[in-house]
This record gives sequence, structure tokens and C-alpha cells, in this order.
Amino acid sequence: MLGLSSPATLRVEILDSQNETWFKLEFEKVALKRRMVRNFQPKLVPKEKVSRILSLALHAPSAGFSQGWAFVVVQDANLRKQIGDLQGEADFYAGKRFHKFVSEAPVLIVACASEKMYHDRYREPDKLKDDGTEIDWPTPYWHFDIGCACMLIFLAAVDEGLASAFTGVFRVQEMKKLLSIPDHFHPVGVISIGYGAKDIKSPSLKRGRRTIEQVVHYERW
Amino acid sequence: MLGLSSPATLRVEILDSQNETWFKLEFEKVALKRRMVRNFQPKLVPKEKVSRILSLALHAPSAGFSQGWAFVVVQDANLRKQIGDLQGEADFYAGKRFHKFVSEAPVLIVACASEKMYHDRYREPDKLKDDGTEIDWPTPYWHFDIGCACMLIFLAAVDEGLASAFTGVFRVQEMKKLLSIPDHFHPVGVISIGYGAKDIKSPSLKRGRRTIEQVVHYERW
Repeated sequence: MLGLSSPATLRVEILDSQNETWFKLEFEKVALKRRMVRNFQPKLVPKEKVSRILSLALHAPSAGFSQGWAFVVVQDANLRKQIGDLQGEADFYAGKRFHKFVSEAPVLIVACASEKMYHDRYREPDKLKDDGTEIDWPTPYWHFDIGCACMLIFLAAVDEGLASAFTGVFRVQEMKKLLSIPDHFHPVGVISIGYGAKDIKSPSLKRGRRTIEQVVHYERW
Repeated sequence: MLGLSSPATLRVEILDSQNETWFKLEFEKVALKRRMVRNFQPKLVPKEKVSRILSLALHAPSAGFSQGWAFVVVQDANLRKQIGDLQGEADFYAGKRFHKFVSEAPVLIVACASEKMYHDRYREPDKLKDDGTEIDWPTPYWHFDIGCACMLIFLAAVDEGLASAFTGVFRVQEMKKLLSIPDHFHPVGVISIGYGAKDIKSPSLKRGRRTIEQVVHYERW
């Protein structure tokens, strides 16, 4: 906590602006600015930005600090094209008048989760039940945790002046083969990252955002 | 990384600090400051803070904009005690020398995910496969998405000068009954929120954070 005693305090911050507009954004602005952007400029993303985004992702929480996640970063154009094909962008996204925002994004991050690493962790002595057996898993927390880590990636991209989009992996075995992903890791999705371009909004948005009254209940449902 | 080469711009920001320390934090600071805090001061949390945290959570992404999430906010002391009991804090957390950070947190948010809302969404015409059937789900994206929404809650709490902790729900049916959670919603976890107090660090942290070299692979694994 920074103890600011007087009623209002001035904070002076130096903002960097070189060729592009880039500066540190407040958390709330980042959270509100973030959306899935489904079109990218061909402009390359500096590798420092990619590194910073990934470094922050490692700060996601995880059950038992299992950290059962991994990320494959793909920038090679040929490999991006193959991933775009696996994600079905030619017939699916382009058919719905989206851009080819998988292969055309300069950076792809394939997010993977390992259920095995959670079982391994929860078979360690400090996590066993009193009877010496592993806990039951009512929820696959490896998917919850990789969601947390990906959320940090989405937000960190905005903070870096970039945009991102997420596509779920449906051709799981082919993706694993293409990227040599080990057996116990499951590719959950492909995060496209780059400088955003004007995109066609997802028709899903017409559904509207559920209101706080619909989503939040007080004391009991 | 503020690369402070010219041209640099000065931004002057007025920080609010009334009775308590509160100001807008930069995204990166929020992300790095966030950790599970397992002890809380009894001090009440202003309801505006709770509202802002929940409002931001609604900005999480979701497959097909399904938004299959709900949050039950519990502040009643008796109900918090019952939730603490269900979460096993008396014999589990206290036994390991944690504080009773479920019942003692002034605000609990029980995060719920509905698989049904995703199936409903993906049975709408624009989401059906060419053969008219629902897609297969290689990943339970409802758990990924609730992870995204909870990550926003964890971060927004820090932004509000608060701390949070997460406990998974293992007594699912009892929790549903206690809070009148509808059948198709699954309580994933309880988020404790309040003003943080000195806590005992989780022994899991001794495992150490996996390094970027361990977690990130370039081009192929």
C-alpha cells in the first residue's frame, strides 16, 4: 500500500511515445478496452512485448501452485498457415466474413494445460486426504487455471498496445502432432496477437452483455 | 518497461485518497501484486468496491458470448460461517495454520459456471455444424471462461486496494443447496475478498514458480 495521506495527491508519470502510441495503462482501462479483435496488421510485434506478455502470464494462480500450463509461441509464417488451417479459418471464419485472423496474426500463442501435473501435485504428501488418497476433482481446475493465465495474456496484450483473439482448438491430435506437444498437455486454444486492424464484430455480440442483475445474486440466489 | 526516449509526454493524474488509500493502479503493477492472501482484517468493504469488481468481471470473454457464469455475493456473517464450514476451513485450513480466511473475509463471491448455457448457445443456428448438429467440446470452455472472469475479480480486488483468495468447492451439492443455486449452475469456487492482513504463505509456494524457459516454447515444443 502506498500511503497517501492528503485528500488528493498528484502523480506524475512519464509516458513513452516513439513511433507508436504506447504507455502504461491503468488496470481498469485495460480490462474495459480488451475485446477479441479478429483482424491484424501485418506489422511485426517486437519480441520484448511477447516476452513481457508471457512473463505476466506466469503470475496466474493455480491449484496447489501446480502451474500445469505451457505456451507454444509461433511466428513462422508457414507454421502459422498450418495452424490457421487446423483452426478451420479458411472455411469457417472467412466464410463468415471474418479475416484470417489466425494465420495473419504475426504472433500465435498456443495455450496448453496438463491435467497430469495436477494429479502429480495432489499426490504429494501435503495434498493427500487423511486416508492417503488423492482428492476428487469436482471441477477440472487445470482448465480454470489456464483460463486465468490466458486472461492475463489478453490483458497484457492490450497493455502493450496490441490486440488479441482466441480460437478454441478442436483438431486436438493434429495440433499436438504439428507442434510436438507432449502427450499429457492438451492444447486449449490459439491466441492470435498483433496490432489490431478494423475487424468485423462477432455476430455473437448481438446477444448483448448479460447485466449485473442477471449475473449477480446477493446472499442467496 | 518505460523506454524513456524522446519524445516523452508527461501525464498528470489526480489520485483519490479519502479515508483510505485508494488510487488507480497500472495494469502491470496489479498483475504482479496479485497473490492469494489468506487472512483478512474484519474491516468492511464498501459496497461500491464490490460492485465495481463484479462489473469488471462481466467483461471477461466467453465462447460464443455465452457468458455462462453467475456470482453469489455473501456478506451475512452466519452464511459466511456456513460456507466456511462447507469449505472445510476448520479442520483443513486452520489445521495447517492458515487463518479462517473463508468465514472471516467480509465478502465472499461464489463463482458458478453453467455448462448448459454453452450447449444452448451452440445449438443456435449460427453455431451449428454444417450437418446441423452441435459441435463437440474437446475442452470444457465454461471452466476456462469462469477462470477468465475470476481472474478479473482477483485483479480488480487488488485495484480496489483489497486482497483475495480462492478455494475450490468440493461439497458441490451442499453448496448448491445452501445458496439455492439452480441445477444447471456448478459452483466452481469461493473467492474471499477483504482488506488483507499478514498471512501465512502457502507451503505450495516453496515449489517455486516455473520459469519462462520451462513454460514457453518457440515455434515447436
